[in-house]
Order: sequence, then C-alpha cells, then structure tokens
Amino acid sequence: MLRIAILGCGRIGRMHAANVARHPDTALAMVYDMHAPSAEEVAAAHGVPAASSADDVFASGEVDAVLVASVTDTHADYIEKAVAAGKPVLCEKPIDLDLARVNACAARIAGSDVPIQIGFNRRFDPGHRAARDACLAGEIGDLQQVIITSRDPGMPPRSYYEVAGGLLRDMTIHDFDLARYMLGEEPVEVFAMAGRMIDPALMDELDDHDTAMILMRTASGRQCHINNSRSAVYGYDQRVELMGSNGMLISDNRKPHEMRRFSASLSEAASPYEFFFIERYTEAFMAELTAFAAAIAEGRPTEVGFEDGRRALMLAEAAYRSIAENRAVRVEEMA
Amino acid sequence: MLRIAILGCGRIGRMHAANVARHPDTALAMVYDMHAPSAEEVAAAHGVPAASSADDVFASGEVDAVLVASVTDTHADYIEKAVAAGKPVLCEKPIDLDLARVNACAARIAGSDVPIQIGFNRRFDPGHRAARDACLAGEIGDLQQVIITSRDPGMPPRSYYEVAGGLLRDMTIHDFDLARYMLGEEPVEVFAMAGRMIDPALMDELDDHDTAMILMRTASGRQCHINNSRSAVYGYDQRVELMGSNGMLISDNRKPHEMRRFSASLSEAASPYEFFFIERYTEAFMAELTAFAAAIAEGRPTEVGFEDGRRALMLAEAAYRSIAENRAVRVEEMA
Amino acid sequence: MLRIAILGCGRIGRMHAANVARHPDTALAMVYDMHAPSAEEVAAAHGVPAASSADDVFASGEVDAVLVASVTDTHADYIEKAVAAGKPVLCEKPIDLDLARVNACAARIAGSDVPIQIGFNRRFDPGHRAARDACLAGEIGDLQQVIITSRDPGMPPRSYYEVAGGLLRDMTIHDFDLARYMLGEEPVEVFAMAGRMIDPALMDELDDHDTAMILMRTASGRQCHINNSRSAVYGYDQRVELMGSNGMLISDNRKPHEMRRFSASLSEAASPYEFFFIERYTEAFMAELTAFAAAIAEGRPTEVGFEDGRRALMLAEAAYRSIAENRAVRVEEMA
Amino acid sequence: MLRIAILGCGRIGRMHAANVARHPDTALAMVYDMHAPSAEEVAAAHGVPAASSADDVFASGEVDAVLVASVTDTHADYIEKAVAAGKPVLCEKPIDLDLARVNACAARIAGSDVPIQIGFNRRFDPGHRAARDACLAGEIGDLQQVIITSRDPGMPPRSYYEVAGGLLRDMTIHDFDLARYMLGEEPVEVFAMAGRMIDPALMDELDDHDTAMILMRTASGRQCHINNSRSAVYGYDQRVELMGSNGMLISDNRKPHEMRRFSASLSEAASPYEFFFIERYTEAFMAELTAFAAAIAEGRPTEVGFEDGRRALMLAEAAYRSIAENRAVRVEEMA
Repeated sequence: MLRIAILGCGRIGRMHAANVARHPDTALAMVYDMHAPSAEEVAAAHGVPAASSADDVFASGEVDAVLVASVTDTHADYIEKAVAAGKPVLCEKPIDLDLARVNACAARIAGSDVPIQIGFNRRFDPGHRAARDACLAGEIGDLQQVIITSRDPGMPPRSYYEVAGGLLRDMTIHDFDLARYMLGEEPVEVFAMAGRMIDPALMDELDDHDTAMILMRTASGRQCHINNSRSAVYGYDQRVELMGSNGMLISDNRKPHEMRRFSASLSEAASPYEFFFIERYTEAFMAELTAFAAAIAEGRPTEVGFEDGRRALMLAEAAYRSIAENRAVRVEEMA
Repeated sequence: MLRIAILGCGRIGRMHAANVARHPDTALAMVYDMHAPSAEEVAAAHGVPAASSADDVFASGEVDAVLVASVTDTHADYIEKAVAAGKPVLCEKPIDLDLARVNACAARIAGSDVPIQIGFNRRFDPGHRAARDACLAGEIGDLQQVIITSRDPGMPPRSYYEVAGGLLRDMTIHDFDLARYMLGEEPVEVFAMAGRMIDPALMDELDDHDTAMILMRTASGRQCHINNSRSAVYGYDQRVELMGSNGMLISDNRKPHEMRRFSASLSEAASPYEFFFIERYTEAFMAELTAFAAAIAEGRPTEVGFEDGRRALMLAEAAYRSIAENRAVRVEEMA
Repeated sequence: MLRIAILGCGRIGRMHAANVARHPDTALAMVYDMHAPSAEEVAAAHGVPAASSADDVFASGEVDAVLVASVTDTHADYIEKAVAAGKPVLCEKPIDLDLARVNACAARIAGSDVPIQIGFNRRFDPGHRAARDACLAGEIGDLQQVIITSRDPGMPPRSYYEVAGGLLRDMTIHDFDLARYMLGEEPVEVFAMAGRMIDPALMDELDDHDTAMILMRTASGRQCHINNSRSAVYGYDQRVELMGSNGMLISDNRKPHEMRRFSASLSEAASPYEFFFIERYTEAFMAELTAFAAAIAEGRPTEVGFEDGRRALMLAEAAYRSIAENRAVRVEEMA
Repeated sequence: MLRIAILGCGRIGRMHAANVARHPDTALAMVYDMHAPSAEEVAAAHGVPAASSADDVFASGEVDAVLVASVTDTHADYIEKAVAAGKPVLCEKPIDLDLARVNACAARIAGSDVPIQIGFNRRFDPGHRAARDACLAGEIGDLQQVIITSRDPGMPPRSYYEVAGGLLRDMTIHDFDLARYMLGEEPVEVFAMAGRMIDPALMDELDDHDTAMILMRTASGRQCHINNSRSAVYGYDQRVELMGSNGMLISDNRKPHEMRRFSASLSEAASPYEFFFIERYTEAFMAELTAFAAAIAEGRPTEVGFEDGRRALMLAEAAYRSIAENRAVRVEEMA
C-alpha cells in the first residue's frame, strides 16, 4: 500500500485525493495546499492530516510518494524537492510552461533514480490503450498514420486562459504526448495552424487560440494529424485513429450509457458525449495510479517519465514556431 | 434473356415492370391489367404492348414467363393458367388468403414441373441472406433462436385493410416465410398475441389487428419470435437476429445514407429509416428476378416454391387459431 | 451515513461489501456468513467486525440496515427478522423460490413500515433507466411493445443449477421485474416456451431449461417479449427495446471500451461484451444503494418493494404453468 | 431526354454508358473510343452506333451533349471541341494534369455559355450532400473545421501510376474539390506532407507518393485536413466530418449491407467496406447525371463548372510546392 500525499487541493487535486483514497494499492497520507482552507476541507473529507507546508510533506515519514496537482508554476520546484527527499512523484502535466525551466529541472535531477511519472492520463484510457496494444501486437501491420481528435466541451473561463500558457501548451500537450505514444517513434517535424474562431475577441486580447490543426512526421515517415477545439457542443470529443498496412484501429468516444432514440426525425441517436475529462478518463486516472504504484513497488521505471513531459513541451514549442513562421519546423530546432 | 409479362399494373406491378425492363437477364414483353388505362400507361412508359386479356398473355409466343402482381384473389387462377400454358410464374405473395383455395390450386398443378416462385423477396435481401449464409456455414454453431422485427412505417388506408386479409395473412406472412428460411426447419408450434393499439376503432370495426407478437418452435426445439407493428414512426423497421451456440448474427436496418448528426442534445443520430419496402428491398426485388431467371435458364427448382407460399399461410392460420384459443397450436392441425 | 451490515459473504456479498464501503452515503458496519471464515476474510479486508450470528447483527446498535446476500432459502427468514428488529433491508432477489413461502412472509410483515428493497438492480442501470424515463416523459407516445433480451455469457456450474430454482425463477425473474418496470402496467397473461439446447443432458437430468422465449400482455394490451439464453459466447447480452406510437428507445449493450477494429475481413468490430453482471451493472449496484439510503433517509417507500419481488415470482410461476399446459396463463391464476 | 454521346469506352466510360442508358432523363446516343473494338463492344451492348471519330460525335445531329471519359490528355481538347460545337459537356476529372494547359483551355472557351460540368461525383454522394445541406441550413452554426478521409482500397497497377500525374493530381484532387464544396470558401493556404510507405521502391522510382496528409485554411480562418492512402485493406474509406460552433456532422462509410457478427472474439463486426468508387458512388454517379441534364434543361449553370476543375488543380499544385519547400503555400502563388 503506497502512502501518497497530495500537493494541491483544487478541482483536480480533489479528484486525485478521492482516487488515491479508494484505490486498492494506495492510501491517502496527507494533503497540502497554499490555501489552507482548501487543504483542510479535503483532509477532513478523507480523515487525513492537512500539512502546514509543502516541506512538511516532503519531510514526513508517513509519506511514501507525492502527487503534484498544484498550480503549474510550482510543478518543477516540487519535482526537485521530491527528488531531493527521495520521494517518488506523480506530477500533473505540464512540468512547466517554460522549456528552459524544464531543462533546468532536468539538469538538477539528473542522475537521480527517484521515480517520476507525468500525468498524461490518456495513455491509460482503456480504448486508447487497447488500440496501441493491438498496434504493437502487429494487428494492423506497419503503422502509417495517426489521427487524434481532441475537443473540449466548452470554453473555460477567462481566468483559466490567463495562466494556462496557450492552447498548445495547455491542451494540445496531451495530444502531443498521445501522438508520441501511438506513433512509437519521435516526431521530427511539426507544422501547425491555429485559429480564433470561437471567441476571436478574447483570443486576440490574450494572444491565444481556440482551434488548431497540426501535422507531424516521424523519422521513418509516419504521419500524424491532431485537431483541437475548445468548444464541441456535443461533448468532450476524444478519438484516436491508427491506420496501418494491414488494418485500422479507432478508439472512439464513450457515451454515458447506451440508450438510443428513434423518432420521426432521427434514428439511432445517442446522448451527447457529456463527459469532460474527469468523467471520460475516470478509468484512466485510476489506471495511472495503478501503474505508478506498480512501478514503485517493482522498482521499474514509470511508464511516462520526465523526458516524456519535456518532449511534449518541445513539440508544443515547435508548433508555436511553425505558426509564427508558417513552415514545417524540425523538433531538433527546439533542443 | 427471359421475356416476362406483368399481370397487374398497380403500385407493385409498376415497380416490377421497371425492374424487369432494366434487369440484365430479363426483358419486359407485355403488360396486362383489368383496368385497361393502367396497363396502357405502363405499356407506353416501357414501349411494350398492353394485352387485352390475361388469356392473351398466356397464349402469347412472345412471353416466356409471367409475373403476377395483380389483386390477391386472382393469384391462384393465374398460377393455374400459367401452369396450363407451361409458362413459369413469379407470383406476388400470398397465393391466396384462403388455405382451402391454396390447397385446391396445389392439387390442380400437382405433377407439373412448370417453375413457380413466390414473391417472398426478403429472402433475397443482401443483409438477411448474408446472415443466413453465415449461419449455414456454421459460423454461429447450432442455431437456437431467431428474432424477427418487422414494422411498417405507417398505417395503410382503410381500403387496403378491407382486402388485405388481416395482419397475419397480409404482413406477417413475409415474416413467417423469413422465419422458415432462417430456422432451417419447419415450425411445428405457434403461439400468437395480436392487438389493436394504433387505431383501435378501425381495427375493431374490421376485426383486424395492428400489432402482434408471435412465438414459434421447431421440432428440434429452435425458438422464434416475430414482432409486428403497422406504424413505426421512425421508418420501416426490418431486423433479423440469429442466436447460436457459437455466436450471433444481426441483419439490421438500412439507412438512406450514412450521415450522422451531433449537437448539444444528441450524438451519432442518423436519419430515420425512411424507406418502405420498395426502397429497402430494392436490391432484394432485383435479386429475386435474378434467381427466377437463373432457375428457369438452368432448369432448377426455384428457391421459393409454391409449397413455401402454402406453408407461410398455414403458419398464419395456426397463429389465428392460437389467438382464438389462447394456446399454442400445432401447425399440423392446419393440414 | 447509513451503517449497513452484510448477511452472506459469497461472491455477491463481497461485491456488496465493497460497494457499501466505498459508497459516499453508506458505511460497512459488520458482516456475517454461516461459514465463519468467509465472514472473517471480508471483515478483515474492510476493517469491520464479523458477527458471530445473524441474530447479533439484528440486535446490534451499530447497524442501521441490513443487506441480505446469503443463500436464497434464508432470504425470507432474514426479511422477517429485519422487520421484527425494525431494520430496513435490501434483499437480493429472489425473496424465495416458493411462492407460498413468499406469501407467508408477506403475511407476517403485513402492517410494518420497515423499508424493504429487493435487489432488482437492472432498474438502476443508467441506460435502462434513461429509456424508461424518456418513455414516462412521453417521448415515444403510447408504449406498445417491450422487448427484453437477456442472455448470460456462459453456463454456470452444475452446483449452481442444483439450488437456483430453475431458469425462470433464477434468471428470468430479473426480466420479469424489468418488464413490469418498463411496461408501466401489470402483465395479466403469460405464455412461455423453454428449451434445452445448450446442455440438453444436464437440463434433462435436472429438469431445468437453458433457453426460453416468453410473451406477456397487460390489461390495456401492451405486449412484451423476453428471450433468454444461459450461454451467449459474445458476452453478457442485456438489451431493452421500447416501441411506442411516437418512437422507439433501445438500451443497448455496454462494451468494455470503444475501440473498433478494421481489417481485410471486417470493419467496425468491437470487443466482445465481456462483462457479466458485476461488470455490466457496476453503476446499477451503486445506484440501488443510493436509492436505498435515500429512501430511508427521506422516509419514503423504496423504489422496488417486497410486492415487486412477489410479483416477479408470480410471473415465473405463471410461465411454468404455461410451459406445462402449453397455453397462455392468466397471472391471477397464481394468486 | 438528353441524348448523350460517350467519349472513351474504358472502365469508367462503360459505367457511364450504362448509367446514361438507364437514367430516366438521358439516352445513350453513340459511343467513341480511339480503340475501335472497345467502342464497338459498348455500342453493341447498348444497341447504339459507334462513331468512327470524335469529330463525328461533335458533328452529329443525334447528340445533344457529350460525356468525356477518355484518357486525361484528351480532356481539354474535347472540351474545346464540345464548346466549339455548342454541345454541353460532362468531363471526367481532371481537366488536364498541366495547369498551363487548363488555363489555355479556359482562355479558349472564355465567353462561351456552353454548359461544362466536371465529374467531381463525390459532391453528389447522398451522405456528403446531406452533410453539406445541413451545414448550409445552419444546423451546426459556423463551420470551423473540415476533415476528409480518403483512402483507396488497394494500390493500382504500375501502368496506372505512369499516367496518373501523381497522387495529389490524381486522387487528392477529388478531396480538394470536396474540401472547397464543404468549406464554402476558397482555401487560401495549403501545407502538405506526402510519403512512400506502401510501396516505397515503386514510389521512389516514379517520384510519386502513396500516403499524404494536408492542411488548408480559408481566408476567414476555417481549417481543413485531408488524409490519403492508396491502400486501406478494410475497403474504400471515404469520410467527411464538419465541425461547427453548434454541432458536428459526419458522413461515414457505406457498407454493402447491415449484417453484423458477434462471436467469442468480437461484437458488432460489419463486413469490410468492400466498395471501390464505382460501388460506393453508384448513387452519386447517377445524381451527377441528373444534375447535368437538369442544368441543361433549365438553362442554369452546372453545379460543378470548369473553374471548379481548375481550382482543384491549383490546390494540388500548391500542395506540391508545399512539399518541395516544406512550408505553407498561398494558393495565389499558383495563379
């Protein structure tokens, strides 16, 4: 039983606290948040202590590992402290919005063998994973194309955009990671188009984007397309398609249930994909905990390491340069 | 090229005339209808003669075979005349609404080897046939259950009911035949429930039914369920399910196209099944012509013979007795 | 927080213990099993006491309600004891295999207002419930037909059959309840066919059935078909179809994930429906706990009461008489 | 009844001859092919004359319009001759593989009002058209993204590649046209990646590609992705997705029938999409004839004019420049 402390008690931190508490392989040891009442509330709900500082968490003998769900600009610091304290860390994405900070973090933790796992939960979605497993098992022959559709169900509030770091670093970064996972090879080249179609005024003001299409290519020539939208009114749209020489695999959307309607105006109509990530990726969040606990228990590397977090950010940076220069950008230019 | 004359130039006769005219294996030789202007109209559309009597059709040296699409009470007569004239006949279902008349017809044509095919077109539907072929090929192991859903898209006019002979003889008779085709064995027992839910007043007045559920069992124990409705607002609903020891096969509905809608209130919504039988069974009607022409050309028995028409009517009669006596009825009671 | 004791620590009891423990509205108070080691194992896993007798459970001041998951022939006794002790009871189906025993139990608890809920969990399945809610909301107009497909993924062991009470009392009883729930009216008439197709030798020996088809009719004429099989190799098959004057609703099967395969021999292929009831009805089992806790907290009648358990058994008895006499049986004959 | 002559009696010409012959609005007047025996064979099959030269066709008083289905390098000549002869022309795509030749043709026919329709048949596919109609009707609000999947079922023979003009001019050109049709605006910018993954040796030798991914953007910012493959083993894969501010529309693949298989290893498996374009776009080919005949009869412009053919080729040329220079290319650079 891995005793985990949660750092950060906002929306995602609360979800992780509940998951850690009910997961058969983990126990919730304590929680911490800069905003003490948040930590106390979560602590009370689960009957665990609220730490008075992050350092207390890292120093605690009751804590085997930490789960970082705090605001983004604390992630790299917490990773460094966790490594210094010898505590394995499961850190929500991204490591940082600034590639230089990520590289500095990498330098500081170099040589450590403290397990680090980045929260790219989509790799653990049962459908996505089944597709990759079938692909790796050779079911579709040589993989040729990957198409990732990733659309959020609606625009977040303005306050979210102000700290999110831009569409490609905040949202697409999941898809960049998923693309690497599915492609089985590093993308070497990126071309990106990004737009302001949903709320052009806000996006102009914040110099952000709400819609994007991206192409990538690996060294062996595999092709990948990602499309993004901040607002799919029909629900959270998360699809992966793998095209190969001997077949195709599609991991499609999950519906809340399988009831379908038939009327004088339509047939076979399902409910909207009402889930957002907490609902759609419920099983994935639990499975990433399973994988984290198992990696630690068995002394193996985690499935999604620090370098995976760094690589995804490099792709986002390459995509931003592609947008700026309207050309394909080689990922090595970001190194 | 089989030269076919059409007897009966109503809605279904016109469809058959067009099919015969464009089918690569058949040619439209002439048409006849008791109502001469109907025949003349169809004849003119296809540039063929309108016969002035049915006897002229049977006597004509230009006619290799006849397709009977006239009103039901002429079918048995025309079959007898066709056999007497040595002309193969493709006769729309049913042979007659009266089992005694069917049996008399059978007696009169006994010993003849003139090919007779009954228009149970659903046997020729590509999906239904693929299901049966897969079943016969052993794909689902031993067949155990057959479920047939058969619902018309809307109530026909009162005038139709007045001559149709009752729900089970008019509409379910297709499903009785399809059940026999799918079961691969004769049903030996029938239980039927029939209701008046769509237009109770009209059904009461005409002593007819608009909704039904039926169970049947074969000698070896295979089970079959048929459900019927005169009014499925979402379109013509025609499904077959075959359950076996090693799997299941479902022949589902056909949509006009594969466009699906996604909105804030629904996902994956297809258009209604707008087809009625002429649209849904377009390919089936052509395939039954192919089979008819091929049987004649190759001197083989037709795939759906006179006895198939008689058997389906026996099942309808057994079902009516079941309704009257509220018990399972053995089909042999009808013999 | 409702403190619940579990009576019976077999497979289903363990599942309930885990559900009660993680449900936000309930707490696991203690467990009991005639076979003490089973109770101790479950007790240890959840850190709760194992009672040394059922009476201790009913007498305990730490227990607000009991969940009966023991062998069937203890159910009625436990219900009577729970009522005597004033403890609300959630009892797995069936109340008893013997209608006389159920009626005696009913007589003994008559006048009590202790809440009793029978574990007909399918009523709480999200898809089935969405279908019923849409139907009740008038979305499909007047309900005319209900079709329930209910097939287990594989034959249980011989030992299971020996105590299960026969296909219709053990398995179909869920569908009888679901039919009542969906029909919105009591079935007044039942016709049943049952067969021995999967393991005829075993079924003959035990005088049991492995395959069935049933028709029912309500007073207003609504029709219902249930089909059952003990062995669907493609997985647990649980479908409900509601046909109405203004549309149709289908609650279809749930897949483990939404990955589909495309190859040279097939397209759009999903994984088998691998779930059995614990997997398929995971959400339903939790939702029935929610409903039970809410009914008690709010002092309302439970959604699925003792009479629902009795009515379902009456339908099973009517179906057995129908099989014996090969006729439609009025349910009132069972009263 | 529009009397149409077919120029070119190869595979696609034969299909058009059959379509023209059975279409209710058209009649097959005569056929011509440089290879006289081909023309004679088709002529005999339909009972029409085979012209001894293309000029005879253009001069004939029996011919109201011509359908050009000959080899590509004759298309522009025939269009010019048809215009000179005042005969409306339905010309298979592309107009020519050389944009300069297309521009020269445009200059020569400038000012003529002889109707010209280019054979971009996909615009007439019922599903694709239903999607566009729903989009134009405002059903999904503002259109934001278009995704076109277009994969052939298998590699054509080497001889085909030698004259086809390259993947983007031969195959993608259909998708470029479909993109323009769906986007409702001209693409102004194109980025393309093309690969050699299916038969790298052959593609290297011929300097051609077998796999591609393309991005396009319109002036208002709408985004479009096209992906292509020469070899989808699961069949001809033709999908269109329209994403808008208020919903999404998907025109999915058409199956040969709706039979689905369920077994111990899979569920809901359909047959492969076995159709290639003649099968998949059967209805579309007929509908383009309907539109052509109607435009002529009613004196309206055709729905897919010469400029549409030129624009699609410009997009292909922009895509080739993008591949060469690895940057986004403005379409106006091609002017």
